[in-house]
Amino acid sequence: MSNLPPYDLATLAVLLNAELVGNPNTKIHALATLKTANTGDLSFYHNSRYYTDLCETKASAVILSKNQATNYPGNKLLTDNPYICYARSSHLFKLEPSKEKAIAPSASIHASAKLGSNVAIGENVVIAQNVNIAKDVTVAANTVIEADVAIGEASRIEANVSIAHGVKIGKRAHIYAGVVIGSDGFGFAQEDDKYFKIAQLGSVIIGDDVEIGANTCIDRGALDDTVIGDGVKIDNQVQIAHNVEIGNDTVICGCSAIAGSVKIGRNCVIAGAVGIINHVEIADGVTVTAMSLVNQSIRESGSYSSGTGLSSTAEWKKNIVRFRQLDKLAKGLKKDK
Amino acid sequence: MSNLPPYDLATLAVLLNAELVGNPNTKIHALATLKTANTGDLSFYHNSRYYTDLCETKASAVILSKNQATNYPGNKLLTDNPYICYARSSHLFKLEPSKEKAIAPSASIHASAKLGSNVAIGENVVIAQNVNIAKDVTVAANTVIEADVAIGEASRIEANVSIAHGVKIGKRAHIYAGVVIGSDGFGFAQEDDKYFKIAQLGSVIIGDDVEIGANTCIDRGALDDTVIGDGVKIDNQVQIAHNVEIGNDTVICGCSAIAGSVKIGRNCVIAGAVGIINHVEIADGVTVTAMSLVNQSIRESGSYSSGTGLSSTAEWKKNIVRFRQLDKLAKGLKKDK
Amino acid sequence: MSNLPPYDLATLAVLLNAELVGNPNTKIHALATLKTANTGDLSFYHNSRYYTDLCETKASAVILSKNQATNYPGNKLLTDNPYICYARSSHLFKLEPSKEKAIAPSASIHASAKLGSNVAIGENVVIAQNVNIAKDVTVAANTVIEADVAIGEASRIEANVSIAHGVKIGKRAHIYAGVVIGSDGFGFAQEDDKYFKIAQLGSVIIGDDVEIGANTCIDRGALDDTVIGDGVKIDNQVQIAHNVEIGNDTVICGCSAIAGSVKIGRNCVIAGAVGIINHVEIADGVTVTAMSLVNQSIRESGSYSSGTGLSSTAEWKKNIVRFRQLDKLAKGLKKDK
Repeated sequence: MSNLPPYDLATLAVLLNAELVGNPNTKIHALATLKTANTGDLSFYHNSRYYTDLCETKASAVILSKNQATNYPGNKLLTDNPYICYARSSHLFKLEPSKEKAIAPSASIHASAKLGSNVAIGENVVIAQNVNIAKDVTVAANTVIEADVAIGEASRIEANVSIAHGVKIGKRAHIYAGVVIGSDGFGFAQEDDKYFKIAQLGSVIIGDDVEIGANTCIDRGALDDTVIGDGVKIDNQVQIAHNVEIGNDTVICGCSAIAGSVKIGRNCVIAGAVGIINHVEIADGVTVTAMSLVNQSIRESGSYSSGTGLSSTAEWKKNIVRFRQLDKLAKGLKKDK
Repeated sequence: MSNLPPYDLATLAVLLNAELVGNPNTKIHALATLKTANTGDLSFYHNSRYYTDLCETKASAVILSKNQATNYPGNKLLTDNPYICYARSSHLFKLEPSKEKAIAPSASIHASAKLGSNVAIGENVVIAQNVNIAKDVTVAANTVIEADVAIGEASRIEANVSIAHGVKIGKRAHIYAGVVIGSDGFGFAQEDDKYFKIAQLGSVIIGDDVEIGANTCIDRGALDDTVIGDGVKIDNQVQIAHNVEIGNDTVICGCSAIAGSVKIGRNCVIAGAVGIINHVEIADGVTVTAMSLVNQSIRESGSYSSGTGLSSTAEWKKNIVRFRQLDKLAKGLKKDK
Repeated sequence: MSNLPPYDLATLAVLLNAELVGNPNTKIHALATLKTANTGDLSFYHNSRYYTDLCETKASAVILSKNQATNYPGNKLLTDNPYICYARSSHLFKLEPSKEKAIAPSASIHASAKLGSNVAIGENVVIAQNVNIAKDVTVAANTVIEADVAIGEASRIEANVSIAHGVKIGKRAHIYAGVVIGSDGFGFAQEDDKYFKIAQLGSVIIGDDVEIGANTCIDRGALDDTVIGDGVKIDNQVQIAHNVEIGNDTVICGCSAIAGSVKIGRNCVIAGAVGIINHVEIADGVTVTAMSLVNQSIRESGSYSSGTGLSSTAEWKKNIVRFRQLDKLAKGLKKDK
């Protein structure tokens, strides 16, 4: 069975473990949304918001749930969870340009480094002493891996990444371009008006199946390590300070800033541009909505928010004057009663 | 006519298409603000806030508007828009160290890549298969350009940039150091408590005359492309998620975070550190002020804001307690009536 | 006296200028927190919040203040400021893998560049014309230093850093991976609906003893320079726009965004994810708490804040509706009286 498009719809049904209704010989060349799909495309329906698009789609076949089957007369792949089925199918249509599984001649690899089988090391990659790269790992061009780093099986490191000494990364990690892992934590002791640097003696430990988005930074610990659990997904430009601990299967969206020694539980969702002050603890199963400031620990699962919502600037200017008077207004109100 | 300072004032008048009043032989060596200017400097006056500086300036000549001409007795260049005239003049005084228009011997360029005439490729640049670099393009040292990327005429890519496969960049782009374009969008399907990666099959399409600031990230689309219009100016450390579309001549200031599938119109100004949640649409001609959260679509042009304004921390602590009581306070108020 | 662990406690007392009470032959292998310490570890006690940990610690010795000496019966090092003493001790236990003090053969160093004695230049580093690197400087792999840059004695530049032409950096700087210094400021003149680029003719001047965290960006000035004072400590992913001036010994935490021409005084603390709008001035000795927006100048030292504090999302949704009505509510209140 080929792993390259186009696919017969019958082949896709097998690969995706879905029930085929319709013409098994339909040729599928690509994936597309219901709205943009044309002949030769497979699409998916997972949310009633897109019902009109489903009715009007030109897709040659649609993934949808068994209980929605009667809503679509055309060729279809029926499944319990259409969004997961779409996610699985997406990998069948990925046509990434092949990279040679080879070690580029311009890579600088220290003699003491250990490389597993089937690794690919790009141009100008620098690998220092005692680094341990497991089998099937890919390291893209111009990435720097300092001494004593370990990278687990089938992990993929993109271009221009910097990984400082002693960092440990698990299996199947995907680390995007420009990421910095293991930079010193931001620790100083104040003496009079000057700041005296505290050496950062800990490291960074990253579990299996972790994704770390472009230009994200994860600092090494001061004494203990910074720890990222298994299955954690981190988006672009996230800042994770020293000694943060993140529980398994937690998601952190772009541009969030997590200060030192924060502990986040399992299965949390930290939305984009959230700030979390230092030493805060967050329970399992917490959602924090976009751009909220977490300035206290969160002990119970649930959804939390801060901010004012959006107004026209003219109205906002009036309301922020009142916000500054809020305590006085409230006290006046109580006195009146 | 020389394109290097010093210039005669008469030469500058011609180059800037301005009306000269004063001594045409005045030698101008540099540009400076009214306040810091000295003999040999050209300055500019565009805002009445700087009127005192205009009266006291030691500049050898000043750019100002025709209707302000009588406010300054010295040598002057008169023009309709002094700020634009200053902007044009700034390029005449730029003395950037010349870079050799050459291909560095340490650059790794795939045999299938196509390079136009007069390109400059820096040390350790990596250019993969089927990349197409048009004429007059400059790529600074240690930048990585993956397979199937196209870069238009006269674009300039600075150091340590990472451009992933298939990204298309227009003419006269300026892409600053550390930028990452075409990294995977942050897309997962949740199955029980685990996240399953959705392959990101789209790309990033960037128009002409676009500026992208240092360490900014623009992710590739999930199915369709992420699209940046002509003339868009993006500052440093901006995050642009998958399938975002930005209309022509929109400005996005530093550290703003734009979530997936957001559509921003033309001629908008998104100030610094703004957050925009996913699937929001923003009309043409919208301004969002600094650090606002856009958590709903904006259908009409105008200026929008969120946040509370700044207070002393002591007062703020009292007011945020009242903010949490706001709905109760307001309800109490209505009951009283 | 060895500078490598393990140390006798007596040796540590001398190196740290502390008073030893207990067994001078105690062998100390590592530093640890009171909670995680075991036999062979030195710990420290500086905050009554950790009193229980002090009582239960398994550390072989503890650093504490003279007036707390009676609270701990074990081996101890007495000092006036235990946190500073811990900071000093941390450097004694730092076992960073040694880097060769050498110039890597793959580094590209222009013939006109000047390198002091005892410098270390990593693989694929690019150093352009007229760069001046003082003695004892370390530059890690894949960093790019453009023309006319000067770097002072004993400074340390990590991997994948980009320093643009003409930037001046003082002594003992520590610049972490992915930093971009001297990128163009974000300056445009608007003409009709288009933006016309203003050449950025200034540079960046950085004092002595400055720390600049991973992926931080500092832009060059438009006409004058961007200036970072002595002893300034900047965390990861901070954005410093053109013509910002930062006074000596000021601290700026992760992800803060500082817009153009902002002036920050000495000995300020700008917490994480703060935004500061352009042209604002901040006095000496000011603290701004996490994620605040500074939208006006701050003339007096003290602590300042903005934001609403965190609520459950359900309560928050009610309160932000009321926030939008705040001016009307307050006016109604006044009318009632």
